[in-house]
Amino acid sequence: MTFTTRTPRIVAARRLQRRKDRDQTGRFLAEGPQAVRAALAAGVVLELFGTDGALTRHGDLALLAPVVSPVDEDALAALAETVQPQGLVAVCEQMDVTLGDALAKRPRLVAVAAEIRDPGNAGTVLRTADAAGASAVIFAGDAVDPYNGKCVRASAGSLFHVDVVRTGLGVVGELRNAGLQVLATSGHGADDLDSLLDDGVLDAPTAWIFGSEAHGLPREVLDAADRRVRVPIYGGAESLNLAAAAAVCLYASARAHR
Amino acid sequence: MTFTTRTPRIVAARRLQRRKDRDQTGRFLAEGPQAVRAALAAGVVLELFGTDGALTRHGDLALLAPVVSPVDEDALAALAETVQPQGLVAVCEQMDVTLGDALAKRPRLVAVAAEIRDPGNAGTVLRTADAAGASAVIFAGDAVDPYNGKCVRASAGSLFHVDVVRTGLGVVGELRNAGLQVLATSGHGADDLDSLLDDGVLDAPTAWIFGSEAHGLPREVLDAADRRVRVPIYGGAESLNLAAAAAVCLYASARAHR
Repeated sequence: MTFTTRTPRIVAARRLQRRKDRDQTGRFLAEGPQAVRAALAAGVVLELFGTDGALTRHGDLALLAPVVSPVDEDALAALAETVQPQGLVAVCEQMDVTLGDALAKRPRLVAVAAEIRDPGNAGTVLRTADAAGASAVIFAGDAVDPYNGKCVRASAGSLFHVDVVRTGLGVVGELRNAGLQVLATSGHGADDLDSLLDDGVLDAPTAWIFGSEAHGLPREVLDAADRRVRVPIYGGAESLNLAAAAAVCLYASARAHR
Repeated sequence: MTFTTRTPRIVAARRLQRRKDRDQTGRFLAEGPQAVRAALAAGVVLELFGTDGALTRHGDLALLAPVVSPVDEDALAALAETVQPQGLVAVCEQMDVTLGDALAKRPRLVAVAAEIRDPGNAGTVLRTADAAGASAVIFAGDAVDPYNGKCVRASAGSLFHVDVVRTGLGVVGELRNAGLQVLATSGHGADDLDSLLDDGVLDAPTAWIFGSEAHGLPREVLDAADRRVRVPIYGGAESLNLAAAAAVCLYASARAHR
Protein backbone atom coordinates (compact mmCIF):
# COMPACT_ATOMS: atom_id res chain seq x y z
CA MET A 1 0.00 0.00 0.00
CA THR A 2 1.30 3.44 -0.94
CA PHE A 3 0.53 6.33 1.41
CA THR A 4 -1.03 9.51 0.04
CA THR A 5 -1.36 13.04 1.41
CA ARG A 6 -4.60 11.94 3.09
CA THR A 7 -3.21 8.92 4.92
CA PRO A 8 -3.42 9.71 8.67
CA ARG A 9 0.25 8.86 9.31
CA ILE A 10 1.26 11.32 6.58
CA VAL A 11 -1.06 13.99 7.96
CA ALA A 12 0.43 13.47 11.44
CA ALA A 13 4.02 13.47 10.18
CA ARG A 14 3.46 16.62 8.19
CA ARG A 15 2.43 18.47 11.34
CA LEU A 16 6.01 18.01 12.58
CA GLN A 17 6.94 20.92 10.33
CA ARG A 18 5.44 23.06 13.13
CA ARG A 19 7.33 23.66 16.36
CA LYS A 20 4.26 23.15 18.55
CA ASP A 21 3.77 19.64 17.22
CA ARG A 22 7.46 18.83 17.50
CA ASP A 23 7.47 19.97 21.12
CA GLN A 24 4.31 18.00 21.95
CA THR A 25 5.37 14.74 20.33
CA GLY A 26 9.14 14.84 20.86
CA ARG A 27 9.56 13.98 17.19
CA PHE A 28 10.89 15.75 14.11
CA LEU A 29 11.54 15.26 10.40
CA ALA A 30 14.78 14.64 8.57
CA GLU A 31 14.81 14.71 4.77
CA GLY A 32 17.18 13.51 2.09
CA PRO A 33 19.56 10.53 2.08
CA GLN A 34 22.41 12.25 3.96
CA ALA A 35 20.28 13.23 6.95
CA VAL A 36 18.38 9.94 6.93
CA ARG A 37 21.65 7.99 6.91
CA ALA A 38 22.94 9.97 9.91
CA ALA A 39 19.61 9.58 11.73
CA LEU A 40 19.66 5.82 11.17
CA ALA A 41 23.24 5.61 12.44
CA ALA A 42 22.13 7.51 15.55
CA GLY A 43 19.27 5.05 16.05
CA VAL A 44 16.54 7.70 16.18
CA VAL A 45 14.46 6.88 13.10
CA LEU A 46 10.90 5.79 13.91
CA GLU A 47 9.55 5.57 10.37
CA LEU A 48 11.04 6.12 6.93
CA PHE A 49 8.82 7.45 4.16
CA GLY A 50 10.04 7.12 0.60
CA THR A 51 8.90 7.07 -2.99
CA ASP A 52 9.28 3.71 -4.70
CA GLY A 53 12.17 5.00 -6.73
CA ALA A 54 14.02 6.40 -3.71
CA LEU A 55 13.49 3.26 -1.61
CA THR A 56 14.98 1.22 -4.45
CA ARG A 57 17.90 3.62 -4.98
CA HIS A 58 18.62 3.71 -1.24
CA GLY A 59 17.84 0.09 -0.41
CA ASP A 60 20.62 0.08 2.20
CA LEU A 61 18.82 2.78 4.16
CA ALA A 62 15.43 1.12 3.81
CA LEU A 63 16.92 -2.07 5.27
CA LEU A 64 18.07 -0.23 8.40
CA ALA A 65 14.80 1.55 9.18
CA PRO A 66 12.43 -0.02 11.74
CA VAL A 67 9.36 0.90 9.65
CA VAL A 68 9.42 1.71 5.94
CA SER A 69 6.35 3.21 4.26
CA PRO A 70 6.12 3.81 0.52
CA VAL A 71 4.51 7.14 -0.33
CA ASP A 72 3.38 8.72 -3.58
CA GLU A 73 5.08 11.81 -5.01
CA ASP A 74 2.46 14.18 -3.63
CA ALA A 75 2.78 12.81 -0.11
CA LEU A 76 6.56 13.07 -0.28
CA ALA A 77 6.31 16.66 -1.51
CA ALA A 78 3.93 17.45 1.36
CA LEU A 79 6.33 16.03 3.97
CA ALA A 80 9.43 17.67 2.54
CA GLU A 81 10.32 21.34 2.92
CA THR A 82 12.78 21.46 0.04
CA VAL A 83 12.17 21.10 -3.66
CA GLN A 84 14.57 18.18 -4.02
CA PRO A 85 14.36 15.94 -0.94
CA GLN A 86 15.53 13.05 -3.14
CA GLY A 87 12.51 10.97 -2.21
CA LEU A 88 13.16 10.28 1.48
CA VAL A 89 11.78 11.75 4.71
CA ALA A 90 12.19 10.14 8.15
CA VAL A 91 10.21 10.71 11.32
CA CYS A 92 12.81 10.79 14.12
CA GLU A 93 12.82 10.89 17.90
CA GLN A 94 14.35 14.02 19.42
CA MET A 95 17.60 13.03 21.08
CA ASP A 96 18.89 16.02 23.02
CA VAL A 97 20.58 15.24 26.30
CA THR A 98 20.89 17.17 29.54
CA LEU A 99 23.80 19.51 30.10
CA GLY A 100 24.93 17.21 32.92
CA ASP A 101 25.00 14.16 30.65
CA ALA A 102 26.90 16.00 27.94
CA LEU A 103 29.48 17.36 30.40
CA ALA A 104 29.88 14.02 32.17
CA LYS A 105 31.76 12.84 29.08
CA ARG A 106 34.42 15.47 29.82
CA PRO A 107 34.36 17.08 26.35
CA ARG A 108 37.44 19.03 25.27
CA LEU A 109 35.57 21.29 22.85
CA VAL A 110 32.00 22.56 23.17
CA ALA A 111 30.03 25.17 21.20
CA VAL A 112 27.27 27.20 22.81
CA ALA A 113 24.72 28.96 20.57
CA ALA A 114 23.20 31.63 22.81
CA GLU A 115 19.88 33.08 21.73
CA ILE A 116 20.56 32.28 18.08
CA ARG A 117 17.20 32.49 16.37
CA ASP A 118 18.10 31.92 12.73
CA PRO A 119 17.77 28.20 11.99
CA GLY A 120 20.24 28.30 9.11
CA ASN A 121 22.88 29.87 11.34
CA ALA A 122 22.20 27.37 14.11
CA GLY A 123 22.51 24.46 11.70
CA THR A 124 25.77 25.82 10.34
CA VAL A 125 27.17 26.13 13.87
CA LEU A 126 26.24 22.46 14.45
CA ARG A 127 28.01 21.42 11.26
CA THR A 128 31.10 23.51 11.88
CA ALA A 129 31.36 22.46 15.54
CA ASP A 130 31.14 18.81 14.52
CA ALA A 131 33.79 19.29 11.83
CA ALA A 132 36.12 20.97 14.32
CA GLY A 133 35.75 18.04 16.71
CA ALA A 134 33.32 19.52 19.26
CA SER A 135 31.35 16.78 20.97
CA ALA A 136 28.48 18.92 22.25
CA VAL A 137 26.49 21.87 20.94
CA ILE A 138 24.41 23.73 23.51
CA PHE A 139 21.37 25.79 22.49
CA ALA A 140 21.10 28.30 25.33
CA GLY A 141 18.36 30.76 26.19
CA ASP A 142 15.73 31.76 23.68
CA ALA A 143 17.38 29.93 20.79
CA VAL A 144 15.89 28.35 17.70
CA ASP A 145 14.49 24.82 17.96
CA PRO A 146 17.38 22.55 16.85
CA TYR A 147 14.79 20.28 15.22
CA ASN A 148 13.51 23.06 12.96
CA GLY A 149 13.66 21.71 9.40
CA LYS A 150 15.99 24.40 8.14
CA CYS A 151 18.37 23.83 11.06
CA VAL A 152 18.35 20.07 10.46
CA ARG A 153 19.18 20.61 6.79
CA ALA A 154 21.88 23.23 7.41
CA SER A 155 23.56 20.87 9.88
CA ALA A 156 24.06 18.38 7.02
CA GLY A 157 23.81 15.41 9.38
CA SER A 158 25.85 16.90 12.23
CA LEU A 159 22.73 17.27 14.40
CA PHE A 160 22.97 13.48 14.72
CA HIS A 161 26.72 13.38 15.43
CA VAL A 162 27.05 15.64 18.47
CA ASP A 163 25.37 15.83 21.85
CA VAL A 164 22.65 18.47 21.49
CA VAL A 165 21.65 20.26 24.71
CA ARG A 166 18.83 22.75 25.26
CA THR A 167 19.11 24.86 28.38
CA GLY A 168 18.94 28.37 29.84
CA LEU A 169 21.49 31.14 29.52
CA GLY A 170 23.09 30.43 32.92
CA VAL A 171 25.41 27.73 31.67
CA VAL A 172 28.79 29.28 32.33
CA GLY A 173 29.19 27.99 35.90
CA GLU A 174 28.39 24.40 34.94
CA LEU A 175 30.75 24.54 31.96
CA ARG A 176 33.56 25.80 34.19
CA ASN A 177 32.84 23.15 36.82
CA ALA A 178 33.28 20.56 34.07
CA GLY A 179 36.83 21.77 33.53
CA LEU A 180 36.19 23.94 30.49
CA GLN A 181 37.46 27.48 30.09
CA VAL A 182 34.59 29.61 28.82
CA LEU A 183 35.36 31.96 25.94
CA ALA A 184 32.67 34.41 24.84
CA THR A 185 32.98 35.90 21.35
CA SER A 186 32.59 39.64 21.03
CA GLY A 187 33.62 42.14 18.40
CA HIS A 188 34.99 44.29 21.21
CA GLY A 189 36.56 41.51 23.28
CA ALA A 190 39.78 42.34 25.12
CA ASP A 191 41.52 39.16 23.97
CA ASP A 192 42.58 38.62 20.38
CA LEU A 193 42.07 35.09 19.04
CA ASP A 194 45.52 34.85 17.45
CA SER A 195 47.22 35.95 20.68
CA LEU A 196 45.37 33.26 22.64
CA LEU A 197 46.53 30.68 20.12
CA ASP A 198 50.12 32.00 20.30
CA ASP A 199 50.11 31.95 24.09
CA GLY A 200 48.84 28.39 24.39
CA VAL A 201 45.59 29.46 26.05
CA LEU A 202 43.58 27.47 23.54
CA ASP A 203 45.37 24.25 24.52
CA ALA A 204 42.96 23.87 27.45
CA PRO A 205 39.51 22.30 27.10
CA THR A 206 37.25 25.09 25.88
CA ALA A 207 33.60 26.07 25.55
CA TRP A 208 33.00 28.77 22.94
CA ILE A 209 29.88 30.91 23.29
CA PHE A 210 28.46 32.54 20.16
CA GLY A 211 25.66 35.12 20.16
CA SER A 212 23.32 36.30 17.46
CA GLU A 213 24.70 38.51 14.73
CA ALA A 214 22.12 41.20 15.37
CA HIS A 215 22.47 41.45 19.13
CA GLY A 216 25.70 39.76 20.16
CA LEU A 217 25.83 38.12 23.58
CA PRO A 218 23.81 39.29 26.59
CA ARG A 219 25.83 41.28 29.13
CA GLU A 220 25.41 38.62 31.82
CA VAL A 221 26.95 35.95 29.60
CA LEU A 222 29.87 38.19 28.60
CA ASP A 223 30.51 39.02 32.25
CA ALA A 224 30.31 35.42 33.41
CA ALA A 225 32.75 34.07 30.79
CA ASP A 226 36.46 33.65 31.55
CA ARG A 227 37.47 35.79 28.57
CA ARG A 228 35.84 37.93 25.92
CA VAL A 229 37.52 37.14 22.62
CA ARG A 230 37.49 39.00 19.33
CA VAL A 231 38.39 37.59 15.95
CA PRO A 232 40.91 40.07 14.51
CA ILE A 233 39.67 42.12 11.54
CA TYR A 234 42.49 42.89 9.10
CA GLY A 235 40.52 44.75 6.43
CA GLY A 236 37.60 47.15 6.13
CA ALA A 237 34.83 44.79 7.29
CA GLU A 238 33.12 45.70 10.55
CA SER A 239 32.69 42.10 11.63
CA LEU A 240 32.35 38.51 10.47
CA ASN A 241 29.03 36.77 10.14
CA LEU A 242 28.19 34.15 12.73
CA ALA A 243 29.10 31.13 10.61
CA ALA A 244 32.50 32.57 9.73
CA ALA A 245 33.31 33.69 13.27
CA ALA A 246 32.34 30.30 14.69
CA ALA A 247 34.47 28.53 12.10
CA VAL A 248 37.54 30.62 12.84
CA CYS A 249 37.22 30.23 16.63
CA LEU A 250 36.40 26.51 16.67
CA TYR A 251 39.17 25.71 14.21
CA ALA A 252 41.67 27.71 16.26
CA SER A 253 40.79 25.42 19.17
CA ALA A 254 40.96 22.35 16.95
CA ARG A 255 44.43 23.43 15.84
CA ALA A 256 45.53 23.87 19.44
CA HIS A 257 44.09 20.49 20.46
CA ARG A 258 45.75 18.46 17.71
CA MET B 1 9.01 66.99 -4.28
CA THR B 2 8.68 63.44 -2.95
CA PHE B 3 9.06 60.60 -5.45
CA THR B 4 6.42 57.88 -5.65
CA THR B 5 6.40 54.40 -7.16
CA ARG B 6 5.32 55.99 -10.45
CA THR B 7 8.10 58.55 -10.72
CA PRO B 8 10.20 57.56 -13.76
CA ARG B 9 13.50 57.64 -11.82
CA ILE B 10 12.01 55.22 -9.25
CA VAL B 11 10.69 52.96 -11.99
CA ALA B 12 14.12 52.92 -13.64
CA ALA B 13 15.96 52.31 -10.35
CA ARG B 14 13.65 49.48 -9.43
CA ARG B 15 14.57 47.66 -12.64
CA LEU B 16 18.09 47.32 -11.25
CA GLN B 17 16.78 44.44 -9.14
CA ARG B 18 17.08 42.46 -12.40
CA ARG B 19 20.44 41.28 -13.68
CA LYS B 20 19.68 42.22 -17.28
CA ASP B 21 19.12 45.83 -16.34
CA ARG B 22 22.19 45.90 -14.10
CA ASP B 23 24.31 44.53 -16.94
CA GLN B 24 22.89 47.01 -19.47
CA THR B 25 23.26 50.10 -17.31
CA GLY B 26 26.36 49.24 -15.29
CA ARG B 27 24.46 50.27 -12.17
CA PHE B 28 23.11 48.50 -9.09
CA LEU B 29 21.28 49.11 -5.81
CA ALA B 30 22.62 49.22 -2.27
CA GLU B 31 20.18 49.42 0.62
CA GLY B 32 20.42 50.32 4.28
CA PRO B 33 22.75 52.79 6.03
CA GLN B 34 25.74 50.43 6.33
CA ALA B 35 25.91 49.65 2.60
CA VAL B 36 25.13 53.25 1.62
CA ARG B 37 27.91 54.53 3.88
CA ALA B 38 30.41 52.12 2.31
CA ALA B 39 29.20 53.03 -1.20
CA LEU B 40 29.60 56.74 -0.48
CA ALA B 41 33.10 56.16 0.89
CA ALA B 42 33.93 54.29 -2.32
CA GLY B 43 32.60 57.21 -4.38
CA VAL B 44 30.19 55.14 -6.44
CA VAL B 45 26.80 56.55 -5.38
CA LEU B 46 24.91 58.25 -8.22
CA GLU B 47 21.67 58.99 -6.39
CA LEU B 48 20.45 58.41 -2.85
CA PHE B 49 16.76 57.72 -2.27
CA GLY B 50 15.42 58.05 1.26
CA THR B 51 12.27 58.59 3.24
CA ASP B 52 12.09 61.94 5.01
CA GLY B 53 12.68 60.26 8.36
CA ALA B 54 15.73 58.31 7.13
CA LEU B 55 17.28 61.33 5.41
CA THR B 56 16.95 63.26 8.68
CA ARG B 57 18.32 60.39 10.81
CA HIS B 58 21.22 59.90 8.41
CA GLY B 59 21.89 63.52 7.53
CA ASP B 60 25.64 62.81 7.36
CA LEU B 61 25.05 60.35 4.51
CA ALA B 62 22.63 62.70 2.70
CA LEU B 63 25.29 65.43 2.78
CA LEU B 64 27.81 63.16 1.03
CA ALA B 65 25.55 61.98 -1.82
CA PRO B 66 25.76 63.81 -5.17
CA VAL B 67 21.98 63.66 -5.63
CA VAL B 68 19.46 63.10 -2.83
CA SER B 69 15.81 62.36 -3.64
CA PRO B 70 13.10 62.06 -0.99
CA VAL B 71 10.73 59.15 -1.62
CA ASP B 72 7.50 58.05 0.02
CA GLU B 73 7.26 54.81 1.98
CA ASP B 74 5.75 52.89 -0.94
CA ALA B 75 8.52 53.95 -3.31
CA LEU B 76 11.15 52.95 -0.73
CA ALA B 77 9.49 49.58 -0.24
CA ALA B 78 9.41 49.06 -4.01
CA LEU B 79 13.14 49.82 -4.34
CA ALA B 80 14.19 47.70 -1.38
CA GLU B 81 14.39 43.91 -1.35
CA THR B 82 14.32 43.52 2.43
CA VAL B 83 11.53 44.27 4.85
CA GLN B 84 13.65 46.65 6.91
CA PRO B 85 15.90 48.67 4.59
CA GLN B 86 15.90 51.46 7.19
CA GLY B 87 14.68 54.01 4.68
CA LEU B 88 17.69 54.30 2.35
CA VAL B 89 18.47 52.90 -1.10
CA ALA B 90 21.30 54.16 -3.33
CA VAL B 91 21.79 53.77 -7.06
CA CYS B 92 25.49 52.98 -7.50
CA GLU B 93 27.92 52.61 -10.38
CA GLN B 94 29.43 49.16 -10.77
CA MET B 95 33.09 49.39 -9.86
CA ASP B 96 34.73 46.07 -10.70
CA VAL B 97 38.24 46.27 -12.05
CA THR B 98 40.20 44.10 -14.46
CA LEU B 99 42.28 41.22 -13.17
CA GLY B 100 45.35 43.04 -14.40
CA ASP B 101 44.53 46.17 -12.43
CA ALA B 102 43.85 44.19 -9.25
CA LEU B 103 47.08 42.21 -9.55
CA ALA B 104 49.15 45.28 -10.41
CA LYS B 105 48.77 46.28 -6.77
CA ARG B 106 50.71 43.14 -5.78
CA PRO B 107 48.13 41.84 -3.29
CA ARG B 108 49.31 39.41 -0.61
CA LEU B 109 45.93 37.73 -0.16
CA VAL B 110 43.26 37.13 -2.81
CA ALA B 111 40.04 35.09 -2.76
CA VAL B 112 38.66 33.52 -5.93
CA ALA B 113 35.00 32.44 -5.99
CA ALA B 114 34.83 29.96 -8.87
CA GLU B 115 31.37 29.26 -10.29
CA ILE B 116 29.67 30.17 -7.03
CA ARG B 117 26.05 30.74 -7.93
CA ASP B 118 24.46 31.37 -4.54
CA PRO B 119 24.44 35.15 -3.92
CA GLY B 120 24.39 34.76 -0.13
CA ASN B 121 27.48 32.57 -0.24
CA ALA B 122 29.26 34.95 -2.61
CA GLY B 123 28.48 37.91 -0.37
CA THR B 124 29.74 36.04 2.67
CA VAL B 125 33.00 35.22 0.89
CA LEU B 126 33.39 38.95 0.10
CA ARG B 127 32.82 39.86 3.75
CA THR B 128 35.12 37.18 5.13
CA ALA B 129 37.87 37.89 2.60
CA ASP B 130 37.75 41.59 3.47
CA ALA B 131 37.86 40.81 7.21
CA ALA B 132 40.88 38.53 6.71
CA GLY B 133 42.71 41.29 4.86
CA ALA B 134 42.30 40.14 1.25
CA SER B 135 42.46 43.07 -1.12
CA ALA B 136 40.77 41.45 -4.12
CA VAL B 137 37.90 39.01 -4.64
CA ILE B 138 37.67 37.41 -8.05
CA PHE B 139 34.37 36.04 -9.39
CA ALA B 140 35.54 33.46 -11.90
CA GLY B 141 33.61 31.51 -14.50
CA ASP B 142 29.84 31.20 -14.38
CA ALA B 143 29.53 32.88 -10.98
CA VAL B 144 26.72 34.95 -9.50
CA ASP B 145 26.53 38.65 -10.34
CA PRO B 146 28.38 40.39 -7.47
CA TYR B 147 25.86 43.24 -7.74
CA ASN B 148 22.92 40.92 -7.05
CA GLY B 149 20.98 42.45 -4.14
CA LYS B 150 21.37 39.46 -1.89
CA CYS B 151 25.12 39.35 -2.51
CA VAL B 152 25.44 43.08 -1.80
CA ARG B 153 23.57 42.65 1.49
CA ALA B 154 25.47 39.53 2.59
CA SER B 155 28.75 41.34 1.96
CA ALA B 156 27.76 43.90 4.63
CA GLY B 157 29.66 46.68 2.88
CA SER B 158 32.72 44.63 1.93
CA LEU B 159 31.76 44.71 -1.76
CA PHE B 160 32.85 48.36 -1.58
CA HIS B 161 36.11 47.68 0.31
CA VAL B 162 37.88 45.19 -1.93
CA ASP B 163 38.80 45.08 -5.61
CA VAL B 164 36.06 43.05 -7.28
CA VAL B 165 37.06 41.27 -10.51
CA ARG B 166 34.87 39.32 -12.93
CA THR B 167 36.70 36.99 -15.26
CA GLY B 168 36.84 33.50 -16.72
CA LEU B 169 38.00 30.31 -15.03
CA GLY B 170 41.48 30.42 -16.53
CA VAL B 171 42.93 32.73 -13.90
CA VAL B 172 45.57 30.52 -12.32
CA GLY B 173 48.40 31.46 -14.67
CA GLU B 174 47.88 35.19 -14.21
CA LEU B 175 47.67 34.82 -10.43
CA ARG B 176 50.94 32.91 -10.39
CA ASN B 177 52.62 35.46 -12.66
CA ALA B 178 51.65 38.09 -10.09
CA GLY B 179 53.71 36.27 -7.46
CA LEU B 180 50.84 34.48 -5.74
CA GLN B 181 50.85 30.80 -4.87
CA VAL B 182 47.50 29.35 -5.92
CA LEU B 183 45.76 27.10 -3.40
CA ALA B 184 42.59 25.29 -4.48
CA THR B 185 40.29 24.02 -1.74
CA SER B 186 39.08 20.45 -2.02
CA GLY B 187 37.68 17.99 0.48
CA HIS B 188 40.10 15.43 -0.93
CA GLY B 189 43.12 17.71 -1.27
CA ALA B 190 46.52 16.14 -0.65
CA ASP B 191 47.66 19.00 1.59
CA ASP B 192 46.23 19.60 5.02
CA LEU B 193 45.65 23.24 5.97
CA ASP B 194 47.22 22.93 9.42
CA SER B 195 50.35 21.31 8.00
CA LEU B 196 50.77 24.15 5.50
CA LEU B 197 50.47 26.64 8.35
CA ASP B 198 53.00 24.66 10.45
CA ASP B 199 55.45 24.44 7.56
CA GLY B 200 55.37 28.13 6.75
CA VAL B 201 53.85 27.58 3.32
CA LEU B 202 51.13 30.10 4.06
CA ASP B 203 53.69 32.85 4.71
CA ALA B 204 53.88 33.47 0.96
CA PRO B 205 51.40 35.70 -0.90
CA THR B 206 48.41 33.47 -1.63
CA ALA B 207 45.33 33.24 -3.82
CA TRP B 208 42.68 30.88 -2.41
CA ILE B 209 40.20 29.36 -4.85
CA PHE B 210 36.81 28.25 -3.52
CA GLY B 211 34.25 26.27 -5.51
CA SER B 212 30.54 25.76 -5.06
CA GLU B 213 29.40 23.51 -2.26
CA ALA B 214 27.38 21.35 -4.60
CA HIS B 215 30.03 20.75 -7.25
CA GLY B 216 33.41 21.71 -5.82
CA LEU B 217 36.02 23.06 -8.21
CA PRO B 218 36.26 22.09 -11.89
CA ARG B 219 39.02 19.60 -12.65
CA GLU B 220 40.98 22.07 -14.78
CA VAL B 221 41.16 24.54 -11.90
CA LEU B 222 42.25 21.88 -9.41
CA ASP B 223 44.94 20.69 -11.81
CA ALA B 224 46.21 24.17 -12.57
CA ALA B 225 46.59 25.20 -8.91
CA ASP B 226 49.90 24.86 -7.05
CA ARG B 227 48.30 22.78 -4.30
CA ARG B 228 44.97 21.18 -3.51
CA VAL B 229 44.24 21.85 0.15
CA ARG B 230 41.72 20.26 2.51
CA VAL B 231 40.45 21.70 5.76
CA PRO B 232 40.91 18.91 8.30
CA ILE B 233 37.69 17.34 9.61
CA TYR B 234 38.03 16.23 13.23
CA GLY B 235 34.48 14.99 13.84
CA GLY B 236 31.67 13.21 12.01
CA ALA B 237 30.84 15.96 9.50
CA GLU B 238 31.53 15.15 5.88
CA SER B 239 32.60 18.68 5.05
CA LEU B 240 32.28 22.35 5.94
CA ASN B 241 29.95 24.71 4.16
CA LEU B 242 31.50 27.24 1.83
CA ALA B 243 31.36 30.18 4.25
CA ALA B 244 33.03 28.19 7.03
CA ALA B 245 35.72 26.69 4.77
CA ALA B 246 36.55 30.09 3.31
CA ALA B 247 36.78 31.61 6.79
CA VAL B 248 39.15 28.91 8.06
CA CYS B 249 41.43 29.10 5.00
CA LEU B 250 41.55 32.89 4.71
CA TYR B 251 42.17 33.32 8.43
CA ALA B 252 44.95 30.74 8.35
CA SER B 253 46.63 32.94 5.73
CA ALA B 254 45.89 36.08 7.75
CA ARG B 255 47.53 34.45 10.75
CA ALA B 256 50.61 33.54 8.70
CA HIS B 257 50.82 37.05 7.22
CA ARG B 258 50.67 38.94 10.55
